[in-house]
Amino acid sequence: MAWDVFSIIGTIAFAISGAIVAMEEEYDLFGVYLLGIVTAFGGGAVRNTLIGVPVSALWEQETMFQIALISITIVFIFPQNLLKHWHRWGNFFDAIGLSAFAIQGALFAVRLDLPISAAIVAAVLTGSGGGIIRDLLAGRKPLVLREEVYAVWAAIAGVIVGLGLFKQDIWLYVIFVSMTALRVLSYMRNWRLPLKSLRNNNSLK
Amino acid sequence: MAWDVFSIIGTIAFAISGAIVAMEEEYDLFGVYLLGIVTAFGGGAVRNTLIGVPVSALWEQETMFQIALISITIVFIFPQNLLKHWHRWGNFFDAIGLSAFAIQGALFAVRLDLPISAAIVAAVLTGSGGGIIRDLLAGRKPLVLREEVYAVWAAIAGVIVGLGLFKQDIWLYVIFVSMTALRVLSYMRNWRLPLKSLRNNNSLK
Amino acid sequence: MAWDVFSIIGTIAFAISGAIVAMEEEYDLFGVYLLGIVTAFGGGAVRNTLIGVPVSALWEQETMFQIALISITIVFIFPQNLLKHWHRWGNFFDAIGLSAFAIQGALFAVRLDLPISAAIVAAVLTGSGGGIIRDLLAGRKPLVLREEVYAVWAAIAGVIVGLGLFKQDIWLYVIFVSMTALRVLSYMRNWRLPLKSLRNNNSLK
Repeated sequence: MAWDVFSIIGTIAFAISGAIVAMEEEYDLFGVYLLGIVTAFGGGAVRNTLIGVPVSALWEQETMFQIALISITIVFIFPQNLLKHWHRWGNFFDAIGLSAFAIQGALFAVRLDLPISAAIVAAVLTGSGGGIIRDLLAGRKPLVLREEVYAVWAAIAGVIVGLGLFKQDIWLYVIFVSMTALRVLSYMRNWRLPLKSLRNNNSLK
Repeated sequence: MAWDVFSIIGTIAFAISGAIVAMEEEYDLFGVYLLGIVTAFGGGAVRNTLIGVPVSALWEQETMFQIALISITIVFIFPQNLLKHWHRWGNFFDAIGLSAFAIQGALFAVRLDLPISAAIVAAVLTGSGGGIIRDLLAGRKPLVLREEVYAVWAAIAGVIVGLGLFKQDIWLYVIFVSMTALRVLSYMRNWRLPLKSLRNNNSLK
Repeated sequence: MAWDVFSIIGTIAFAISGAIVAMEEEYDLFGVYLLGIVTAFGGGAVRNTLIGVPVSALWEQETMFQIALISITIVFIFPQNLLKHWHRWGNFFDAIGLSAFAIQGALFAVRLDLPISAAIVAAVLTGSGGGIIRDLLAGRKPLVLREEVYAVWAAIAGVIVGLGLFKQDIWLYVIFVSMTALRVLSYMRNWRLPLKSLRNNNSLK
């Protein structure tokens, strides 16, 4: 039940972020809906393909699909009003979505008895895959590959869930709350992962 | 039978558009073939994965594959001669492909008893997915997200076919002709979908 | 046995090339790992989806996955030392990976009794698909579509293996050695495929 609420918050946050990016790129109404839907459902769709979840799982989310469509419609009609709140609350809602989706993605891999590498990939894809596809469709370099610490929290959740030590709901909630808090801290404190630049190298260009 | 003819016209138009984009980007002969093939078959391939059509469906199109290869070869050998006609007829042929592929894509979803959201996604992907992948591989922002009204006609066809009210061939032909005409009108009259720009917003950049 | 060695060399070369591209784009540590893994395994993953190899095949490569992670870690820690050798040996190792992966990719299609078109697509995707996804995620135009002759050798290997005339191991080795040599020659002699530019055409922009 609580997970349903987290998933709904995440779906709304992801759909809104897709719609905003589309409007920033001056895409038309269709582009706004497409980027919103792709951001909310694209990561899960790629995960399903890679770890072998039946496609039916994607199409049983009719309610989520409608929630996403309504969210995108509201953003398109009142972008300025919503952006004001988005600046304050957007990252918090997005962090909830990242955590909830990553944990659920890893659980899919665990239930299919796949190795831990699959749980990590499933967590990262479900949590941040939609945002990566969104950025590609917007002609941008994927944000999660160069911003504050983001997808790493999904990867760590994938490791913990993938190890299979924490199957009780209570532990999953602990992981969820910790991960959300760490992501919010990453954003507020502007944490960065180490980076080594080879900007002027051109061996492969 | 008529659908076969429409599909052939669409395959040729899509393959040619991929080959032209590749030459515009100064890709080599291999790039021209790859973009041609991807534009013609990429949308259907992604659709098959998302709605669970067996992969065999992709590989039974041997004849279509050969038609695409021949079309690409002709474009590569005589680009200037062909471009002259393409300017006049390209959009018309492309509209036939968009309509035929969108209707057939939606029918796949209906036959698999998937909900209407799947029919819409299948119609959009089959009709415009190849063009989106073509643009990504060419390093461009996808054309269908910002040009005249295009993929929306595929989405509308997806709704109508997905509702399952019009299963007789005669109705499918009516949808096909209407959709092709509306797409041609969109192009000739330069119809545009509403657009709200957040160009100077940078909350997510 | 020998094929295992070739695959390991290819996996290392592909993972390193992904990590280097990520550092050239100033992606953070997570981006370096993600691009390394995607370059090494992305082509095979897409191939599996398109030709219907069960997903389990992807997740049975645990050893390869660990080899890739170790390679990426070493590149990230000692980029300058490694780049020196990479300039000399990188293309040779990459050619081994291209050949080994293309042949194995085509064999997957042959074992599934798919037509020759599937063998070609499988060979090209397995050999060069990872590099294409790497370039897209780095915000670049795919290198294989415009550099010296590269993916064409994979396509030719796909044709030969797909014809099914050369099933004995000895012939596969001959194809492997020829293909690797031709790729190395393509690079050293700067061979180019024919190219026709429509740079100033803008019918589709």
